[in-house]
Parts: sequence; structure tokens; C-alpha cells
Amino acid sequence: MLTLLLPILAQAAAAQSAGRTQPDAKAPAEIVAAAPAGDWRAIAAEDLLVMELAPGASGRARRVAIQLMPAPFSQGWVANIRLLARARWWDGTSVNRVQDNYVAQWGDATEKKPLPPGLGKVAESGYVGPGQLPFSLFPIEIPIPGEPSREDRAQPTTQELVKVRSLGRVLPRDSYATFTGHTATGWSVGYDGGATWPVHCYATVGVGRNLSPDTGTGAELYTVIGHAPRHLDRNIAVVGRVVEGIEHLSSLSRGTEALGFYKTAAERTPIRSIRLASDLTEAERPRFQYLSTESASFAAYADARANRRDAFFIRPAGGADICNVPVPVRRAP
Amino acid sequence: MLTLLLPILAQAAAAQSAGRTQPDAKAPAEIVAAAPAGDWRAIAAEDLLVMELAPGASGRARRVAIQLMPAPFSQGWVANIRLLARARWWDGTSVNRVQDNYVAQWGDATEKKPLPPGLGKVAESGYVGPGQLPFSLFPIEIPIPGEPSREDRAQPTTQELVKVRSLGRVLPRDSYATFTGHTATGWSVGYDGGATWPVHCYATVGVGRNLSPDTGTGAELYTVIGHAPRHLDRNIAVVGRVVEGIEHLSSLSRGTEALGFYKTAAERTPIRSIRLASDLTEAERPRFQYLSTESASFAAYADARANRRDAFFIRPAGGADICNVPVPVRRAP
Repeated sequence: MLTLLLPILAQAAAAQSAGRTQPDAKAPAEIVAAAPAGDWRAIAAEDLLVMELAPGASGRARRVAIQLMPAPFSQGWVANIRLLARARWWDGTSVNRVQDNYVAQWGDATEKKPLPPGLGKVAESGYVGPGQLPFSLFPIEIPIPGEPSREDRAQPTTQELVKVRSLGRVLPRDSYATFTGHTATGWSVGYDGGATWPVHCYATVGVGRNLSPDTGTGAELYTVIGHAPRHLDRNIAVVGRVVEGIEHLSSLSRGTEALGFYKTAAERTPIRSIRLASDLTEAERPRFQYLSTESASFAAYADARANRRDAFFIRPAGGADICNVPVPVRRAP
Repeated sequence: MLTLLLPILAQAAAAQSAGRTQPDAKAPAEIVAAAPAGDWRAIAAEDLLVMELAPGASGRARRVAIQLMPAPFSQGWVANIRLLARARWWDGTSVNRVQDNYVAQWGDATEKKPLPPGLGKVAESGYVGPGQLPFSLFPIEIPIPGEPSREDRAQPTTQELVKVRSLGRVLPRDSYATFTGHTATGWSVGYDGGATWPVHCYATVGVGRNLSPDTGTGAELYTVIGHAPRHLDRNIAVVGRVVEGIEHLSSLSRGTEALGFYKTAAERTPIRSIRLASDLTEAERPRFQYLSTESASFAAYADARANRRDAFFIRPAGGADICNVPVPVRRAP
């Protein structure tokens, strides 16, 4: 009764099962686990933030690793974040807000801590990237043999469509963008003809701001701990994603004040330090890799996420939203 | 710097702001708060489950309220759940699995507790509802004046389309269904020409099962605590939604074993009781209402969820996925 929902146990239990319709179908996690070493790309140490929270009730360390967004997106804020980390500005600050099904947010609760010199001011135009795609899109919806095509559900008119169709795939339908996909650098994006932008999914890291035209400096950061708040896309700077340890943020007690702020200072979770991995010693650095979105392994993984054929499933969906196809990240072996 | 993301503070702060483009635009929460009493519908006591978890470290009570799914969906499992609650079967069981960005699951960790007599066995055909819609769909995508129509992005061919277009609205695009909407009874559904089905969103409650053809009894239940796992739609019975107290489940420590199961019995959260509200005394019963999905207030709320025009936002999305338009529920005043 307990082997429900995810394929791992079900797949194992099903080795002798007659119930599954495609005996060789692999679950997404199995495809990722079988990806050859050459399909993985290292995350550079200068693109990795390491946040150490004070230990919780159990006394165990709570470390959160965040991969920073690469060019051409959000680089003004990312430069500020590197500067703030090198200035050790976050040391002694705290997680001040945890709102259920929304975000956990950290920074200076007093709003009075002086910022280090040299932070840049970034324009709202930085919320989106270029209209000419500097990367390959990898669409995530792939027809199921024997089921009706979904081509009639999307009418893209861009030149990208030609490229995509040449791959024999169909564009996904999305409620927030003309289409969505993954960049060659391993990030999930929306596209609307005139621009490309990074999207808000679970574990996305963004920049808190005040009302427009303020765009935030990067000193106040949040991560998504609920259903993807895609309405924030193009309204806030997306600067990265949590690649390890998000459970240390998502399982924190929810704040009871408006927007999930904590009522008392004692409820906040202290931040011991936030460092760039490149500023840690070689021995201290965690090392991560992401699955290349240009690899055959990723194509098979995305297909499997959109069309679950492994033993637990009786009906593949025939599609997936962009936030249900997260780019796999692992510790470097 | 802290007034980010949600409109409540931003809206308040913006009363004198020159930055917003539509001075009278209300945030979704404001529209809901202003809904007249006649737009609210009572949730019947026999449709409400009340789960009492053992108190946490703070010593405070942890109560979770779950609204059960109405006809025509999942009624075989819902009948079993009422029977299990009346048999007090869950008393002394526990929350056994919490998997980050996925589900929290409860039931009998031993898998040996005898089930009460009288439970029905439900066929897989019960995962979906009728093809002829017994309700009004309320689509959630509405054109923004002055922005390009999205009609060219959806090509529904059903008779429902006529009804929807007569309302002057456009169907939302969805990665998992031909279209999505809200039933007149207040539930979020997908529709694909041949059938209608309840969808998996944050706080949805579903029935754990083993491999097909098993469909589960309802004794093992889970709720979604992350991004909507829509690939489970039509593969698992959806039986309800958490309407209060989900933070008591979503903030539990994640299990460290496969699928988020806890390694030790001590890590599980004990369940003191699960009761139908109709089996509690009048004084003990919590009372809830949902915002009628047929009301003008709901239409305005859904529009605002899809097109945030309140002060914090600089660019409305022009759409929303079904899980970002949850049906508002409140305590009866």
C-alpha cells in the first residue's frame, strides 16, 4: 500500500509484474541514473553559493547550495550577489519569511544593515533576455504513438518552430508563454516572440524588491517552496536555483504574520554564512554537475517526464509543464 | 526591501504610489475579501474531515481540515473514507512519508492493521468523471485590453467552447488537458473531449495505491506539498483538498529514505484522530465556506489571478494555470 506515486519502488516491485504495458519503460530517475559521464556538465565554483544556516533542533548542519544564473540573464543582479557574498554581508542575517505554498526569504530583517559599496542598479529591462535565442530550445512535449497529435493545440509562428519541428517534436502548451523550453546552458525559460526569460519554478531563487521602478539589489533573496508562481515571471529578477538542501528552507515553520513574516525575532533562522564556492578551500567546496540539456539522456528524461510509461502509470499525460521537467543536478562523482 | 512578491503590503504601500498603471486594480485577495456573503457556499459537515496530529515541539495543536470531493467524482473512495473515519481507523496511525516538492502521506505504517468491513473496491474507470459536463466550466484566461488575443493559441472543438466564448473569454492553455476550468461545485478539473477529471494541485488529497489494477481503498492518503504533479491526473483517485492547516504537513521534516519515507518510527508524526465534522459535536465542528465559482466575485478573482494589475506588478501574465487559481475557502463568519 505504500509503494505509491513515485516510480522507484514501483519499478523495482514491477520487475515481475504483468500489469505494466511497456516492460522496458524506464522512469525519469532511472534514465538520469544511467546517463553516461559525458552527458554531465560541471557547475563552476564561481557560479555556486553555499549558505550555512544555524543548526536546527536536531543539531545537524543545514547547508543550502544555489547555482547562479549564467548569461545572458540577470547578470547585473548576479554580479551584486557575488559582491555581497565576498563582503560576507549575509553573515549574521536570517531567514525572515516563510509563506506556505510560496516562498522562503532571507536577508537583513532590520532593513538597516549598510550595503557594501559597488552594488550596481539594474533596470527592469533586465528581467528578460534577448529576443534572438542564443541557445537551442529543447521542447518537452513529444507525441505519444497511437494518440492524437497535439500539433493543433499550438500555433507558433516563429522561426524557432522550424528548428523544433526538425527535431520531430511539438511545442508544449503553456499558460504564461508562447512556448517554453530549456537553454543549452541548462535553464528553463519562456519565450514570447520578442524576448526570452527565466521562469519561476520550485527552488527558483529570485530578488526581492520594492515597488517599481525598484528592481532590488540582490541582498534580499527568496526561493520558491510551492507551486510555480509563474505570474512573477518578467516582474522580478530570477538569479538562480537551489540545487541541494532546499528541504532546509521548505520545511521551516511558516511565519504567522502577513506574507509569512515571523512575528518574533526568535522564530527567524540565523544564517551563519553565505559564500561563493570559489572562495572556499578546495576541501570545503561542494561540486555539482547538471545533465546537459543537449544530451540524448536529457531528451529521454524529458520525454519520460511528459509520458510516464513506467509500471505505476496507466495513462501517460502526453505533455508536461516546464516546471515539471527540472534539469537534473547531482554531486560530482 | 521586504514588501516583495505578494500584493497585500504592496497594495497598501501603493495607495499614494504613482508607479502603478491601474489605480483601481485590486489584488486577488482583496477581491475575495470584498465578496458579498451571498457569493459564499457552505461546506457540508459530512464533506469535511478533521485530522488531529499530535502536537509538535511547540506544544500547540495541529489540526488539518480536508474537504471531500463531491459527485460525480471519486465517490467510491469517498464512501470508503467516510467509513474509515467512522470506524476511527486512522486513530493511532501516522504521517509516514514526507517527500520534498511532492507529497506528505499518512496511514498505517505497519501495513498490517485490519481494515474495517464494508470497504468497496473501486475500478480504475473511477479516476475520471463523465464526458458530458454536468457543470459550468469557468475558464481562467481572459484577454487583456490592448494586448494580442490568445485565441489563436487554443483550438478547442467541443460544444463547451460555444458556451465559453459566449462569455467573452478564451480557454486557458494547459500542458495536460485540452482545457481546464472550475466546476459549479467549486473544484478544479481537466477536460479532454471524452472525460472530465479532478486535477492534482497543491493541497489536493489523493489515494495511495499499489500497481494497477489496484486502485487503493482510501486508507492511505497523501496531500500535495509542492509543484502540481499533474502527471498523476487520471492515474490516481483524487478525493479532496486540504482547506486549512496544510502547513502542519508541508513543514514536517522530510523523510530521508527512498520516496521520503522516514527511517525510524520516532520520526513519524502521530495522528490522534480523523473524524468527519458531522460526527463532532456542534461546538467542535469547524465551519468553512468556498467562494462560488459561478459568482461575479470568482470571475473577478480568476481574472486578477491571470492578470495581476495591482501595484507590485509591471507586466500581467495574460493567463494562469489551473493550479494557480485555487478556489478560495474561508472560515464561516
